Parts: sequence; C-alpha cells; structure tokens
Amino acid sequence: MLRTHTCGELTIKNAGEKVTLCGWIQRSRDLGGMTFIDLRDRYGITQLAFNMDGNAALCEKARTLGREFVLQTSGTVIERSNKNPKMPTGDIEILVENIIVLNESKLPPFTIEDNSDGGEELRMKYRYLDLRRTVVKKNLELRHKLSAETRNYLNSQNFIEVETPYLIKSTPEGARDFVVPSRMNQGEFYALPQSPQTFKQLLMIAGYDRYYQLVRCFRDEDLRADRQPEFTQIDCEMSFITQEDILNTFEGLAKHLFTTVINYPVKEFPRISYADAMKLYGSDKPDIRFGMKFVELNTVVKGKNFKVFDDAELVVGICAEGCGEYSRKQLDELTEFVKRPQIGANGLVYVKYNSDGTLKSSVDKFYNEEELKKWAEAFNAKPGDLLLVLAGKEEKTRKALCELRLEIGNRLGFRKSNVFAPLWVIDFPLLEWDEETNRFYAKHHPFTSPKPEDIPMLDTNPVDVRANAYDLVINGVEIGGGSIRIYDKELQKKMFKTLGFTDELAQSQFGYLMNAFEYGAPPHGGIAFGVDRWCAVFGGSESIRDFIAFPKNNAGRDVMADAPSVLSQQQLDELNLILKQKA
Amino acid sequence: MLRTHTCGELTIKNAGEKVTLCGWIQRSRDLGGMTFIDLRDRYGITQLAFNMDGNAALCEKARTLGREFVLQTSGTVIERSNKNPKMPTGDIEILVENIIVLNESKLPPFTIEDNSDGGEELRMKYRYLDLRRTVVKKNLELRHKLSAETRNYLNSQNFIEVETPYLIKSTPEGARDFVVPSRMNQGEFYALPQSPQTFKQLLMIAGYDRYYQLVRCFRDEDLRADRQPEFTQIDCEMSFITQEDILNTFEGLAKHLFTTVINYPVKEFPRISYADAMKLYGSDKPDIRFGMKFVELNTVVKGKNFKVFDDAELVVGICAEGCGEYSRKQLDELTEFVKRPQIGANGLVYVKYNSDGTLKSSVDKFYNEEELKKWAEAFNAKPGDLLLVLAGKEEKTRKALCELRLEIGNRLGFRKSNVFAPLWVIDFPLLEWDEETNRFYAKHHPFTSPKPEDIPMLDTNPVDVRANAYDLVINGVEIGGGSIRIYDKELQKKMFKTLGFTDELAQSQFGYLMNAFEYGAPPHGGIAFGVDRWCAVFGGSESIRDFIAFPKNNAGRDVMADAPSVLSQQQLDELNLILKQKA
Repeated sequence: MLRTHTCGELTIKNAGEKVTLCGWIQRSRDLGGMTFIDLRDRYGITQLAFNMDGNAALCEKARTLGREFVLQTSGTVIERSNKNPKMPTGDIEILVENIIVLNESKLPPFTIEDNSDGGEELRMKYRYLDLRRTVVKKNLELRHKLSAETRNYLNSQNFIEVETPYLIKSTPEGARDFVVPSRMNQGEFYALPQSPQTFKQLLMIAGYDRYYQLVRCFRDEDLRADRQPEFTQIDCEMSFITQEDILNTFEGLAKHLFTTVINYPVKEFPRISYADAMKLYGSDKPDIRFGMKFVELNTVVKGKNFKVFDDAELVVGICAEGCGEYSRKQLDELTEFVKRPQIGANGLVYVKYNSDGTLKSSVDKFYNEEELKKWAEAFNAKPGDLLLVLAGKEEKTRKALCELRLEIGNRLGFRKSNVFAPLWVIDFPLLEWDEETNRFYAKHHPFTSPKPEDIPMLDTNPVDVRANAYDLVINGVEIGGGSIRIYDKELQKKMFKTLGFTDELAQSQFGYLMNAFEYGAPPHGGIAFGVDRWCAVFGGSESIRDFIAFPKNNAGRDVMADAPSVLSQQQLDELNLILKQKA
Repeated sequence: MLRTHTCGELTIKNAGEKVTLCGWIQRSRDLGGMTFIDLRDRYGITQLAFNMDGNAALCEKARTLGREFVLQTSGTVIERSNKNPKMPTGDIEILVENIIVLNESKLPPFTIEDNSDGGEELRMKYRYLDLRRTVVKKNLELRHKLSAETRNYLNSQNFIEVETPYLIKSTPEGARDFVVPSRMNQGEFYALPQSPQTFKQLLMIAGYDRYYQLVRCFRDEDLRADRQPEFTQIDCEMSFITQEDILNTFEGLAKHLFTTVINYPVKEFPRISYADAMKLYGSDKPDIRFGMKFVELNTVVKGKNFKVFDDAELVVGICAEGCGEYSRKQLDELTEFVKRPQIGANGLVYVKYNSDGTLKSSVDKFYNEEELKKWAEAFNAKPGDLLLVLAGKEEKTRKALCELRLEIGNRLGFRKSNVFAPLWVIDFPLLEWDEETNRFYAKHHPFTSPKPEDIPMLDTNPVDVRANAYDLVINGVEIGGGSIRIYDKELQKKMFKTLGFTDELAQSQFGYLMNAFEYGAPPHGGIAFGVDRWCAVFGGSESIRDFIAFPKNNAGRDVMADAPSVLSQQQLDELNLILKQKA
C-alpha cells in the first residue's frame, strides 16, 4: 500500500507515530510562517502542517500545490495547538517530512464542497468530480449499506439469490421495452427486462420457493423528473404462502433496513385498503406522517342553495389544526395552489374556527354560524382550526384535496425527512379500464390473482374485482409492490381473455409460462422494491438521481460519456439495420 | 404458510408431531396394503405413507396422483420400520391424514432425476423442470454461496459495491458490443457493457478507493461451447496500491471462497511469470495439479542427422512417469491425438525407459542407447517412465505439447475435479501484434500499465514490453485477470498512439476518461473474476451453462422463451429502424 493509514483514522492516540497518507488536496492555507493543507480521501480529512522554520523548501513546495492534486505524504502525527472538535481527526495534524505529487489536477470546474457552486448539468458532465463531494459519497454509501443489509436479511431467511437473464423476449404488454438487435439471429431482437417477473414465477414452478435478486430493470418511457431508463429492484418471490406471509416476511425486511441502515426502529406497519386510502387520503400512497384525514360533507352541506356544493358529486375537506389565524394572503395562496392547472380545482372554501369560538367562512352567504358548527363537528374541529373544503367530480376532487393536504402538511412541518411512517396498502383493484384503447389493463400485471371471493365478478363487473395485491408505502412514496399470483392455468387463461388477449397472442407472448403451469405450479406470490427510491426516502431526498452513481438526464443521456451515440456503418451492417431518415 | 415444515427437516425427534408439508411427487409405490409417496421440495424428500387398513379412501386417492403433482398434506410423523440411512429424513415417514392437490401436472417430458433421460435441448426447453433436478439445484446454490461469500469478504475489507450503468457508450475497441437503439435520441444507440472498466476507473478518480460489483457483462461474439452472450463478473478496483497489494487482497478473497464455499482450505498461491508459464507448460493458464513440466532438448538432440529435429525451431518433451509400459496401441492413440487438426503436430517421438534400465525409442535409427540416456537425464527420468517429444515451430509446438500434457494428466488421473491448484500468472506482455489488421492490440486492455522499467521499450521494441498484469488460474482455467492501470495522461496518450488510435478517435471514444485524468487520478489497479467459470471449476464441471439458471444455447437463443424474436412493426417504427432484407 502507498499509505499506512487513511485520512479518517488518526487521533491523539497516534501522536508521535510516523505515518504515510495519500489523498487529494481539499484546501490549503498559507499563514506566512506556517502552511496547512487539508488532505482528503474516502474516509475523511487530515490536516498537514508545514513549517517555514523547520523546512523552508518543503513549505515552499507545499504552497505551489493546487486543489485536487493527489499527494503521498509522510510525517509525524502531532497534537494540534488549535483543535477542531468537529472533525474526527481534529485533535491532530501531520508534521510533514516528505511529499510526493502522485498527480496534478486542473482547477475543477466547480467546488468540491457539500454546497457546490456547480449546476446540475455541469456536475453531471464531471460526475467523477461530483462523486468526490461528501454528500454524494454518503448517498452511495447508504445505497451500499441498504443492498448489503437486504442480502444479509434475505440470506438469513433462506432466500436464494438467482440471476435471471438480461437478454430476454420482448412482450408488448406493459411499458415499452428497450430492445437489442441480434446479429446471430438476423431480423430478431432481444428485449431488456422491465422486471424478471416471468423468470421468478418459473423459479417458483421449479421449486426454489424463496427467491430474490437485486436486479437492474429497464423501461423505455418518456422520462419524468423521478424516472430513469434503468433502475434497480429488490425482486422477491415465495411459494406455499398466503398474502399474510408475504406481508410479514417483507415487513421483517423493511424493519431490518430501518434499524440497520438508518438506525430508526419502527413498530408494526399499519395496513389500509386501497378503497380506504382513496377515501381518507385521496391517494393510493398516503403520507401518514400526519393525520388530517378527509371528511366527506355531502350530507352536511347540500340543500342550502350553494350551487357549487349542490351540483358537486363530492364535497370533501380537511381540518388544518391550528391554522385558524391564517391571513387573507395565506388563504389566497392556498386558493391559488389548488387552482394551478396540475391540480385543477375551481376554488377553495374555508371555514375559520376562531379562538373565541365564532366561525367565519368564505361561504357565509349560504351557511350561517349554526350550520358551520355542524361542519366543525363533522371535522371534530376545535377553536383555532381551519377547515378547507373542495367540491366537484369525485376522483378529481379527492386528488386535488390530496395535494392540498400534503401542502398543508409541508406548511405545518409534518413532513420532516427524518421522520418515517411506513404502511401497507392492500386490496388493490385487479383491473383498470383504459378509455383510449377501450380495454382493461392489469392494474399490477396480468399474473396477479383476484381475491378468490371476487372471481365470480370477473364475468359480471370486472372493474370491482379486487386483487391480492399490495404496496409498501413510506412517507407517501411507493417503495414496492407485489401480488399473489395466479397458479391455475384456467384462471390465467380467463385473465388473459379479460385483458383482450386472443389465445394466439397469449400463447406467442407467454406460451412458455402457460406451458409451465401444466407441470405443477405451486401457490406463489412476491414483491419488488425500488432500490433507488428506497435510498432516496431513507436519505431524505426527492430525487432518485442523487443515489445513482452514473445517472442519465431527463433525455435519457449520459452527459459525461455522451451516450447514446451514433454507430459506425460497419456496426449497422453487421446487424443488418438501416436507420430511417429523420422526417 | 401452507406448511409447518419443509420436506428436508423432519427426523426421529419429530416423531408424534402433527405436521403439514407441501411439495412435488417425486415417485410413488403401490404395495397393495400400503402406498408410499416421496414428496420433494427445495430442501429434501419426505416419505408419505398411506394404509389401506387405516383409510382406504385416502389410500385410493393417493394412488391416482401422478409424478410432479403439487400436494399439501397433513399427518403424523412416525418412525419407519424400514429406515433409509442415506436420507436425512430416512428414519421417519408421515402417516397421512389429509391430502389437498394444489395443482396437477402433465407427465414431464423427461425424468426429474440426477441422471435424467432428457437430452440437453429438451431440458433447456423445459428449463423450469430441469431446475427441479437436485444436481442443477446444487449448482445454483453453489453460485448463491459464492456470490454471498464474495460480498461478505469484500464488505469486511471496506470495499463498497457501486452499481454502474448498463446503457453505456459503444466503443469499437475490443470485442463486439451488443447495442440498444435509443428512441428518445433517434439514430443513436447505447451499448451494453463488456465490462464496467471505464466506470470503475472513474470511481477511483472519484476517490472510492475500494470498489467492487457483481455485474452482468455482454459480448456479441460467435459463441463457443463455453461462452455465453451475457456473463457475470466480480469486478474490483483499488487505489493507492501496488500490484503486490492487489495479489494479496484477492488471494485473500480466493482463499475465503475456497474455505467457505467448498471447504477446501488452500495454502499460499504460487506465482509464475507468463514467460515461464509458456516455457514450462506451453500455456498462460497451466494446470498445476500435476508437474510434468516441459524439458527443452535442442542442445541434446540436434546434429544427429534426424532431419525433423535438426530443422525444428524447438524440440521439447515431457516425461510421463510410470508410463514406460504403454502398449503400441496406447502410443498410437497418443500419436493420433497430437496429429488431430485442432492440435496439429506432425508426429510424436517417444522413448520408453524400460524397467530393466534399457531404452527403446521411435527414433532408434538416429539415436543409440547412450544418446537416449542423455535424453533421460535431461528429463530426470527413471526406469518405467515414458518420454514424449514434439518438434517444430516454437509456439505451435508448445501449444501441442500443452495439450498432450493435459491428455496424459487425464490418463494418469492427475486432473481430479475435487482437487484444486490455484496460481497467479504475472508479467503478461503489454501488447500483441495482429497480422490481419497489421497493428498492435492491448493484450489486456488499453488502460493497462506497462512495467515502469519497460516503458522505454515502447519506442524501440514494443512487443517485449511487459505489463503489470496478472491472471488467477485454477486447474488450468483462467478464473480472473487484471492489471495496474495507467494513471498518467501522457502515458495513456502514448499507449493509444501505440495502438494506432488517432488523437481524434481516442478523444471521441475515451475523451471523458482522458479528461478525468486531468483532475487528479490516483495510482490504481484492479481485477475481474468470471463468476460462471469460478462456479464451474468449484462445481467440478467443464460447462459454465450448468451454473446459469436460464442460459442461452450456442446460437445465443433462449430456447425456452424463444428469444430473440421478431418485433412488431410499431416497435420498429418507434425506433426508426428498417431491417435489411436477407441476402
């Protein structure tokens, strides 16, 4: 090794030792008689001291070295006169006897500090410099820890990690595949997996009974802020289990990660049905770090000649505790908030429950104090609270109120990134109707089992059929989801039929899975978690990109390596491909 | 859970307990008064007993169940009258009280036994059934263990696992890339990585100092028996190290795997230079489970009017100990062996060292007994040995003798699959000359550092420049290899120039890496191991395919899922691709 110690480990106990360190120059300070250099490596920062009186030549040399130069340096550990209690190495410094410049560095295009002066695009272009920043390094360390502890836990529970192929068969169902032209089988293409779904089900049929894999998945979608074309899943499947067993097993995993990765022990996870989540929070991934549940007011408010409410499918509100003193300006802000096009409410009705017990609303014309009292009772409100009410079409109104609830939660400080509230959302609908293509799609995927008691409804009212499907939600973010699978070939056929697959299409797409069902498929089910997103939630960030070493931008480009890029004509010829000219 | 126990865990200690098991019917035996079913799951086999006297209806039902039916069964653990000491559960059976058929099965197309009657193509088509066989399951378990213990070891050594992208930039250098058309960036393509080489070097530049990743890699090569288009590597890199540190660190990893995965502790690994490996074994991956080193005979045999030897660049042989009694037929077989086109020798000269001390050779016309004695001395042979000698062009002759040595090793039982002999091969040449394209290629890759003392030869005789490059070889199989990297941008430029890259090409292909070298690259180096191959060697198999859950065949096809396959016109249109018609 070119070093005897790292830059993060020397303390007063090492005083007097001769050491050799390697690292990068974080900063240097020339104080005339003394020069100091902060040397940084993966483990920390250690101060190097150079004394003009002791060794003028070496001190002069040190002064010529720029930021991010790579040094190998030897010297003696000494106690600092000016200790820095904020640094683990802050009690000591190295009285340097020798420096070797291992490599020089141009001045970096942005500062290598937690609060860098570099914009995102610049930092992405020089990602290798961005990765030197402590905040980014901590994110990758968190990711490493989360992956390692996931494996520790699942290995201890007798799960076997099995690698499934990345060059697979393309299936048009679901999101768009990335495809890979085959040179050896001309005119044919592999697809990159959107998930190892069929393979893990085949492993269950093969008897592996507890499978997992940390696996890359690919989706060729138009990217939004929080999407990447490639992402990592903790992919799991079990046999001879019920839904209850899956929830318990993976609640165990989640608790293990809470404890070992972020030292935040959590109690039993609450469970809520999809129907209740929509009713109480207007979302299938409610943030339950705070309450503020929806209260429906149709029976309380209708029939008082307020046309907006009388005509509404749904009148629903929340009680913002302690916000009764909100100013006109604050209330206007909230009204503007719900009227933004992304949210799309027509307006916001409020009732202030003043601390003196009186009530003041934006609809005093239609509702007298006695009537408003009834509203307050419905909300279980108390003096000092603020009632916020929306009205309109049911689904849209719930969604708008969901956004308003989260906004109020933010304003009241209920959504701290270091507080965590996990929950299970269960009993998802099996199907969703798509107006555009005029057919049902599987809400989860075509292999999800309906609840046995709902199967008869597949023929009568499919939209009401509930699935044995579940999501793990933390702080309003969907961390993972899964389902109990169909293992009966007749039910699977019925499901394909409901989804509008002809027998031929089902056979050509999933024939090998359907065949496998002929040879003794066990009852099975599973779940998959998004590693990037789980890391982001644990790390208190909104962006999964912060937790990916080399992410793509929103156009799917790696701006550092400049990929994708054009191929040589020879490459295209070998693949027998012609590019269509741009229109 | 649908079961209380697995089929592998019940012993006499459980006698009297009520249990529920789930699994597949391995076989059943109808003995008239009694019927027995062997129920199999991932963990083992347990015998189910049905008694006509006790419960005739249940016994009748049991007789109707076919192989590979999936059962849930309840009953009482009882001591067997007829114990089977070969099975962990062989002391007990389940006196069955209830059976639920969870799923039926068609008769499998081959037997689910260690020695199946199914051919490889059939077993691959029904891979989910092949995976039920204990031998295949043990292979995947070995792979899981090897991966898990690799991570345990490297995590304990402060390595951080970092995931690098799978959608990267295509680089024509090296093997052929698989490519992925980009829909969002039309006319452009990603490539799938042949290895994360540049990313791991960037991580070193970013200061991560001990990186690893178990990572899928892709190569679009014409497949040979032991190649797959996708394969898994243990990819590692370290900073602030010398070659010695790399060898020690990863010898530590290898020893850990030998101990924990196959319980085969090994001593310090021998090291041999590439030059010596070629000289003594005719191979850069010698199998040193046995000696039988090459002995060069030019000085001993030339000038005796035997034209074959006199004209040969090299005369070289091995001493097959104890083979002095080989029959004419056996010697003819060996001659045929070396004359096969794959080996290509013109003939084989032998000398039998008879047990009475006399010598008998195939070239008695040219060499008398006294001269043959000198040969024997050169080989350090003793009575009862057989000398085998080849002659011709140096490189070709060494390769042929290498094959002959391995063949004799097989015949003498020196190559047992449960005996392991690891070694390091070091000091590889930096470059190799390609006659066809009339240029140098990097023997390892373009980032490999020459040995510092050999750098001046880059200008004078590049072919003699040795690299700081090394391979780990076990039992004649290259398990992994790596090198110390260039970290000086001028040396890297020189290297690209030697490889015939123009500045423009180097910039367009590796510009981001070259730029990164401007910002303080540390001294670094690494290694990558082939997981599939390591598993195969540990598992005593010649074929990596046996250790891959869903392998491709030699045409790169997944015969189970029937991939690759044709795309829909819509998919091609979205990608702006046209398929060239087949010629």
